Amino acid sequence: MKVGNKTTGVRLRLVFEPDVAFGPGKADLLENIAATGSIAAAGRRMGMSYKRAWMLAESLNATFHAPLVDSSRGGAQGGGARLTEAGEKVLALYRRLEEKAAAAGLEEVEGLRALLREEDGNGEQGNG
Amino acid sequence: MKVGNKTTGVRLRLVFEPDVAFGPGKADLLENIAATGSIAAAGRRMGMSYKRAWMLAESLNATFHAPLVDSSRGGAQGGGARLTEAGEKVLALYRRLEEKAAAAGLEEVEGLRALLREEDGNGEQGNG
Repeated sequence: MKVGNKTTGVRLRLVFEPDVAFGPGKADLLENIAATGSIAAAGRRMGMSYKRAWMLAESLNATFHAPLVDSSRGGAQGGGARLTEAGEKVLALYRRLEEKAAAAGLEEVEGLRALLREEDGNGEQGNG
Repeated sequence: MKVGNKTTGVRLRLVFEPDVAFGPGKADLLENIAATGSIAAAGRRMGMSYKRAWMLAESLNATFHAPLVDSSRGGAQGGGARLTEAGEKVLALYRRLEEKAAAAGLEEVEGLRALLREEDGNGEQGNG
């Protein structure tokens, strides 16, 4: 349920080739599709239009060797979607990558945080 | 000299609080200011308007406890800019964070790459 720059921490984007990337938005979409069983509902959770969510899912399906999202279920509940095995694998690999990256860079992240301007005005107030 | 999703690899964004973030674009701007001695020239290298480059530099200066970019040099070469000590420190910490994250996640990155669709058509061509 992370959207845009709203969730603090380390966010990570893998650029496979120019303009072919996998990052937090696509990971969250996969996670929300798995949670809601619907591309539309997943998009709504992320404040994303139905069209945008569909286009992202399509783009994911075209990027990997097998589709990540199966939206072919018809029947009474038509419109449902779920992650394929490849989709679950991609999401799990990405989440593990995020965890490892954050753990490995803990010292640097803390170092950067320590250089932030203090909110309460005790710190330096350089107006540079 | 990395811009947008053009450079392959792991790209990393640190979100300190909602809408306060430091990522590849700002890091590259700092690097280019150090290399060119000018905010305008740094922006040009990145295909960025003068105004946008200035706004990013201003935003960086307001985010940290001390300015990262010193653009106060006047005189005959008026308009020059350089990184402050804080600027060099932030850039170095971020670059080390990037390296550590990429090294820590090597296995996952390779795992994800292995799932990409093959360009030359030998692989599965699911049209999902």
